[in-house]
Amino acid sequence: MTSTVFVLNGPNLNLLGLREPEVYGSETLTDIEKKVAERGKALGFLVDFRQTNIEGVLVDWIQEARTKAKGIVINPAAYTHTSVALHDALKAADVPAIEVHLSNVHAREDFRHHSFVSPVARGIVVGFGSYGYELALEGLARILAQSGHA
Amino acid sequence: MTSTVFVLNGPNLNLLGLREPEVYGSETLTDIEKKVAERGKALGFLVDFRQTNIEGVLVDWIQEARTKAKGIVINPAAYTHTSVALHDALKAADVPAIEVHLSNVHAREDFRHHSFVSPVARGIVVGFGSYGYELALEGLARILAQSGHA
Amino acid sequence: MTSTVFVLNGPNLNLLGLREPEVYGSETLTDIEKKVAERGKALGFLVDFRQTNIEGVLVDWIQEARTKAKGIVINPAAYTHTSVALHDALKAADVPAIEVHLSNVHAREDFRHHSFVSPVARGIVVGFGSYGYELALEGLARILAQSGHA
Amino acid sequence: MTSTVFVLNGPNLNLLGLREPEVYGSETLTDIEKKVAERGKALGFLVDFRQTNIEGVLVDWIQEARTKAKGIVINPAAYTHTSVALHDALKAADVPAIEVHLSNVHAREDFRHHSFVSPVARGIVVGFGSYGYELALEGLARILAQSGHA
Amino acid sequence: MTSTVFVLNGPNLNLLGLREPEVYGSETLTDIEKKVAERGKALGFLVDFRQTNIEGVLVDWIQEARTKAKGIVINPAAYTHTSVALHDALKAADVPAIEVHLSNVHAREDFRHHSFVSPVARGIVVGFGSYGYELALEGLARILAQSGHA
Amino acid sequence: MTSTVFVLNGPNLNLLGLREPEVYGSETLTDIEKKVAERGKALGFLVDFRQTNIEGVLVDWIQEARTKAKGIVINPAAYTHTSVALHDALKAADVPAIEVHLSNVHAREDFRHHSFVSPVARGIVVGFGSYGYELALEGLARILAQSGHA
Amino acid sequence: MTSTVFVLNGPNLNLLGLREPEVYGSETLTDIEKKVAERGKALGFLVDFRQTNIEGVLVDWIQEARTKAKGIVINPAAYTHTSVALHDALKAADVPAIEVHLSNVHAREDFRHHSFVSPVARGIVVGFGSYGYELALEGLARILAQSGHA
Amino acid sequence: MTSTVFVLNGPNLNLLGLREPEVYGSETLTDIEKKVAERGKALGFLVDFRQTNIEGVLVDWIQEARTKAKGIVINPAAYTHTSVALHDALKAADVPAIEVHLSNVHAREDFRHHSFVSPVARGIVVGFGSYGYELALEGLARILAQSGHA
Amino acid sequence: MTSTVFVLNGPNLNLLGLREPEVYGSETLTDIEKKVAERGKALGFLVDFRQTNIEGVLVDWIQEARTKAKGIVINPAAYTHTSVALHDALKAADVPAIEVHLSNVHAREDFRHHSFVSPVARGIVVGFGSYGYELALEGLARILAQSGHA
Amino acid sequence: MTSTVFVLNGPNLNLLGLREPEVYGSETLTDIEKKVAERGKALGFLVDFRQTNIEGVLVDWIQEARTKAKGIVINPAAYTHTSVALHDALKAADVPAIEVHLSNVHAREDFRHHSFVSPVARGIVVGFGSYGYELALEGLARILAQSGHA
Amino acid sequence: MTSTVFVLNGPNLNLLGLREPEVYGSETLTDIEKKVAERGKALGFLVDFRQTNIEGVLVDWIQEARTKAKGIVINPAAYTHTSVALHDALKAADVPAIEVHLSNVHAREDFRHHSFVSPVARGIVVGFGSYGYELALEGLARILAQSGHA
Amino acid sequence: MTSTVFVLNGPNLNLLGLREPEVYGSETLTDIEKKVAERGKALGFLVDFRQTNIEGVLVDWIQEARTKAKGIVINPAAYTHTSVALHDALKAADVPAIEVHLSNVHAREDFRHHSFVSPVARGIVVGFGSYGYELALEGLARILAQSGHA
Repeated sequence: MTSTVFVLNGPNLNLLGLREPEVYGSETLTDIEKKVAERGKALGFLVDFRQTNIEGVLVDWIQEARTKAKGIVINPAAYTHTSVALHDALKAADVPAIEVHLSNVHAREDFRHHSFVSPVARGIVVGFGSYGYELALEGLARILAQSGHA
Repeated sequence: MTSTVFVLNGPNLNLLGLREPEVYGSETLTDIEKKVAERGKALGFLVDFRQTNIEGVLVDWIQEARTKAKGIVINPAAYTHTSVALHDALKAADVPAIEVHLSNVHAREDFRHHSFVSPVARGIVVGFGSYGYELALEGLARILAQSGHA
Repeated sequence: MTSTVFVLNGPNLNLLGLREPEVYGSETLTDIEKKVAERGKALGFLVDFRQTNIEGVLVDWIQEARTKAKGIVINPAAYTHTSVALHDALKAADVPAIEVHLSNVHAREDFRHHSFVSPVARGIVVGFGSYGYELALEGLARILAQSGHA
Repeated sequence: MTSTVFVLNGPNLNLLGLREPEVYGSETLTDIEKKVAERGKALGFLVDFRQTNIEGVLVDWIQEARTKAKGIVINPAAYTHTSVALHDALKAADVPAIEVHLSNVHAREDFRHHSFVSPVARGIVVGFGSYGYELALEGLARILAQSGHA
Repeated sequence: MTSTVFVLNGPNLNLLGLREPEVYGSETLTDIEKKVAERGKALGFLVDFRQTNIEGVLVDWIQEARTKAKGIVINPAAYTHTSVALHDALKAADVPAIEVHLSNVHAREDFRHHSFVSPVARGIVVGFGSYGYELALEGLARILAQSGHA
Repeated sequence: MTSTVFVLNGPNLNLLGLREPEVYGSETLTDIEKKVAERGKALGFLVDFRQTNIEGVLVDWIQEARTKAKGIVINPAAYTHTSVALHDALKAADVPAIEVHLSNVHAREDFRHHSFVSPVARGIVVGFGSYGYELALEGLARILAQSGHA
Repeated sequence: MTSTVFVLNGPNLNLLGLREPEVYGSETLTDIEKKVAERGKALGFLVDFRQTNIEGVLVDWIQEARTKAKGIVINPAAYTHTSVALHDALKAADVPAIEVHLSNVHAREDFRHHSFVSPVARGIVVGFGSYGYELALEGLARILAQSGHA
Repeated sequence: MTSTVFVLNGPNLNLLGLREPEVYGSETLTDIEKKVAERGKALGFLVDFRQTNIEGVLVDWIQEARTKAKGIVINPAAYTHTSVALHDALKAADVPAIEVHLSNVHAREDFRHHSFVSPVARGIVVGFGSYGYELALEGLARILAQSGHA
Repeated sequence: MTSTVFVLNGPNLNLLGLREPEVYGSETLTDIEKKVAERGKALGFLVDFRQTNIEGVLVDWIQEARTKAKGIVINPAAYTHTSVALHDALKAADVPAIEVHLSNVHAREDFRHHSFVSPVARGIVVGFGSYGYELALEGLARILAQSGHA
Repeated sequence: MTSTVFVLNGPNLNLLGLREPEVYGSETLTDIEKKVAERGKALGFLVDFRQTNIEGVLVDWIQEARTKAKGIVINPAAYTHTSVALHDALKAADVPAIEVHLSNVHAREDFRHHSFVSPVARGIVVGFGSYGYELALEGLARILAQSGHA
Repeated sequence: MTSTVFVLNGPNLNLLGLREPEVYGSETLTDIEKKVAERGKALGFLVDFRQTNIEGVLVDWIQEARTKAKGIVINPAAYTHTSVALHDALKAADVPAIEVHLSNVHAREDFRHHSFVSPVARGIVVGFGSYGYELALEGLARILAQSGHA
Repeated sequence: MTSTVFVLNGPNLNLLGLREPEVYGSETLTDIEKKVAERGKALGFLVDFRQTNIEGVLVDWIQEARTKAKGIVINPAAYTHTSVALHDALKAADVPAIEVHLSNVHAREDFRHHSFVSPVARGIVVGFGSYGYELALEGLARILAQSGHA
């Protein structure tokens, strides 16, 4: 049976491929969505892939995932560092969430070193570019298998 | 004459009763709305009860309260700790606002100990669970009576 | 049956009505005691109302409350911000305590923003002037009712 | 040829003229829009003037400016101090942005002294009231002229 | 006419002459009281000289000074650095207070560099040994003369 | 010849055996006094065992010890973390003092990690429950023996 | 009638055009003086343009401006970040001062992010290169016009 | 052709399966080595799996990897948070390194939130238990493939 | 025999009587010089009274005092808070120095609470307006008398 | 039956008796080993006494103690303040550990005031010189007796 | 050919030999100048040796060195710790600068541990007394030789 | 007579010439050893040149130097910033130690700005590349000569 997984993307990720390619690579978010959907399929996941620039919409989607998804992969982008609302939403989500960052945030500005999301994530994948989403899905699959939810 | 009071709820409060019941109790936000409406009625208030996950919508509503309400009761939830926008909106609101928190935020994580809302609130009620909304309404009634606005 | 509640007041509160009336109002502590006693009576409480300038005497009274009172309402005034002894006493008190502040401490000096008492209080009421004691008693009544101690 | 410039306004600026006139003056945002449009016209700019209370909508607009505008004038108001999302959006914008503040933020509360927007702004204009928008436009015109984009 | 001045001494000052004479000199507190009384007399003051080790008793005395004294000279000793209660009492005292320290507290441990008393003192005299009390009295006389209370 | 040793106990220690027994054990302070007296006797000490909730009274007793005791064992409890007055009193005491804590304060809240007493203590014993008083006495005996005061 | 405006330049600005041209551009300070004089003339100002490497000389000049000038434009350069003396001089100046920085100080080292001058400036212009002096003059003209001093 | 990958383990990881199994699971390090070797084999890697409690030996091994391995997977355990030496060794290693943590270090003590290793790691995998090593290998394979070293 | 005392004044004190009279009073520095000279005369001092806006000139004068004066009274004004050079000069001065501040610096901005001068001053007099210079002279006289230099 | 206790000593303790005797006394580590062995014997312990300068070797020994010893007495010396590895090793040790410091670390440099070892120690003994090892053994004996392991 | 080297000395260094000889030795600055000139001569340098107490004059001299000297040896004394102006001047100097301190600043007060000069110095020599100037000259000679400027 | 000097090198310095040559140059550690030996010989020193990646081995060698060497030159590399053990070892060494850094650590990351070694070093040489070892030897020779140990 196929399980739904939400792959949620935060602010400015819709600019991927356009913005600072030396940091984020030249793939667009649509390219990534395609690759992630395929990897998800191979793992038995139906990937629901979304992007928004609005913090509260990310909160809405995480809440939606509570009943509609088996797990969450989230790249909160800028909201990683400022959003207690995401922290609370994920803490209340009841499904495991994997935090993903494309670039190595720890090699960048100081304000990117703290994450409000990390303490409530089950796993964290940082610095592998878009391939990080695939690793996150694989890690999620393992977590769900171990807890009997796959 | 009945005065309108806005009771505004921030992110994730729509999950009340579902999320971490050991911290927040098992009442749903609809249960609370009902009780608050009743208490409001007894105090001569028409309660306009709302919830949103979006910071900017809270700002919209506080601005709306400037002309439509006699006072505000607000549980800003996660935005308590991160929102200068709420601070500015409440400072500009011209009607008294009471800040409410269900749980004792001071007994939780450090990042919940600071509030951008408190310096611009008229009164603050913390830790009484959903009953805090009723105490807030009662306090608001007293403040309005003292300033001749009830 | 009537339950005893201790209403404990910290340093300089005996000057109420004399000191900085623009911040604290013109009521004296005796005025407040009378109003609080009445409200307490209405809620089935016998209010034992005290004031001291000595930190250790507040500790003595909180310890006394352990066996003589159903609950505590405490305005620790200046000791709020400096007293680990009050923290320890309230933690050991076994009866619920409500922390009250007349003025909005969060709108004043930085050193008034931290409270050693808040993490061990059941509820907190800030900024309602002397009416805050009444809200505190009402909140305490609800807490006792819910835990079957009223 | 006329170039489009986005003039973007953050939370609570729609209250201008109503809110704390002793700090912000009595002009409304519509008054300002008119003056800014005129000054823009004189400089050869078509001014697209907008306001929102939602952080993510500001991000949307900055992204829109990437393809539709020659430059951005932005008064991020409260989000100045809390928004990494605006930082990232402006960094990715590829068009020069001028940060404007009506009042002297450095003469106000400590939390208004830090800006996430400043490091990615081309120029900053602070404390000239609504006239700051006009100075910003003039500065922007010069920057565009120097880089051959005017 | 003779005015009363309270000269209040905090914890451990009763050990003067015994304790660390290389820091504080060999005079006892009684020696100092005598000299201060004489100097006070010359200035038209009746000096009420007291010492206590209890923070709350200092608060009591400052409150007493509100109605019984024209001014206060206070050496709060260790409570200088930790007592918000003294801050509040002096702020409410309505009579000018001069803060005195025998040794140069700024040349000692870091925790002696901050004073909760200084912001509410009219004048501060540090490092002159017991002669600082006399300078404080002289300064107080001048302040009272200027405000017409001598 | 028997030497007197003061064993001084700070705020809330009179609740031992009643308060948070999972942290402090079930012995009462009277139980401890008895055991300490016996151990003291074995070491040639007459133990003068006291408890107070008042910071200034602890200061009084430390001063008293200067002339009446050969040494001090002190559990300053909450005042450990806030009292410069105790620091000064012990520094002036001229007899060696041993600081004792029943629980491991370093495994508890951050505000219990700093001690104003430690820099002026001769020895420190932490985490051994009430047996810590006996170790402190034994250590004190050794110190006195080495300096020829036993 | 022509009003005098002081345009004051702090340490190392005499090296402009020589020093780090990739940050500050290739214009010399003399080039800038000429342009600023012209712009000033167009606004009805006689510009008195000066440079010094000595903090105290800047203070002298600001004091001189009190009686000789209608306003001040100041680029305090390195003293921006370290000089309380400039803060005090400008606070006492009684004529409006505009702070100018050529480069975007907020995009450089941390120690350039704080300004002692900003809280006492009427307006601040940052990052427009030498054109910032012209914007500052224009802003100053507007401020003087509004207060009837032009 | 098979490439060698060093999988390096820091202090106390040899206790895995024995120590705090509720945090780290019940697998031993030998169990993990076996699984990692198999996964490595599938990816075309010969895994050289080592553990040491000595910081400097980790440095030796990282230096050894410069010439003997195609990449490094490292779980620096406690040295993550304290070792500048590991930072320098990895920066000099010339082969990509993946940092792995079994548990979610961001959900544990504050001193585990900072990593000296992260800024010099190519990728980071946190919180997936021992499966994190496998994800790290997979991520490393992708990185090597992309740079043409696989 | 008459001893010379240097009375040194830092930046902006030449504006006294003109600048912020509500904080500093309406006396000019010349008025003060006259009064200080008279008081000095009464104490057997020839007062050499100087003012400069330049930090290094204050250093020069302090060095000059080493051989020409018996003592120094210094109001370093803004340099109080930023000058290590004054600290070093006074430490090397070999004659006692008294630090004076007209207003109560501890009741003003945070950056005025720290003094580099205080640790190397013999005495400190704060908040008595210009009368503080006279108290400083009197204190200095006492210090010189006690050390046999008067 | 005799139980083994590991007494572990960190860096530079092998220099005891040679290094700064005014701080640490003139006993050598061999002298101490002898005394500790005797005291251990009296308490029914076989003392295995070791010293190393290498952090990782201390970790090895603590791990060894898990199966070979009933308890640990450890003086981690310099590693006290810097070693998370020791923290983790002791947390995993399953046998009680007593932390010992010869001198009063709280009376020395700031960097000696924090201990990574204390939160995972059962008891702490500070400032008694080499006699602290004996007190530690006695305390350990009591802890083992109480838990039935002696 | 002989190259000129500026050897610049900051505030209070003219007191060398007089001031705190136990810290700085008994040589005067003239003694040092002589020795430095000799060493310089041996290295082919004409040493231009200067001292000033004024920060801005040091800036002037560093600017002068840009065209007149091959290199700079600078002991900025107190300005080391407070002067951004020196930082900027040295950054713009285009000739290598060596920072020298006579005493070990890292073994003294905390405020001497930070240097604004170090990040822009080519080399730093600390703690060798006046011989440090000679080492600095020798190091400078090597740097110039390597870059072909000697 | 020839004196032995230990030249000790910390972690990763064995990679010199291989690692980040743009920062550290292309010389290998063996090249440096040779040059240092020669310079040592010229100064009458027999240089014992060593390198290790293990903190504790550096401690061992420093201890060894106490009896075998006249002085120490040490480049502690990464351990500079984290090792209290090195601090203690050098403090106990009884022979003078010179701290050397090849690159200018103050121009690099913040965590390289603090040194635990500097407060116990006799002299410090920073930023001269490998030539710094030679300057250190020369400085050491002077120190030994002055104290009569050469």
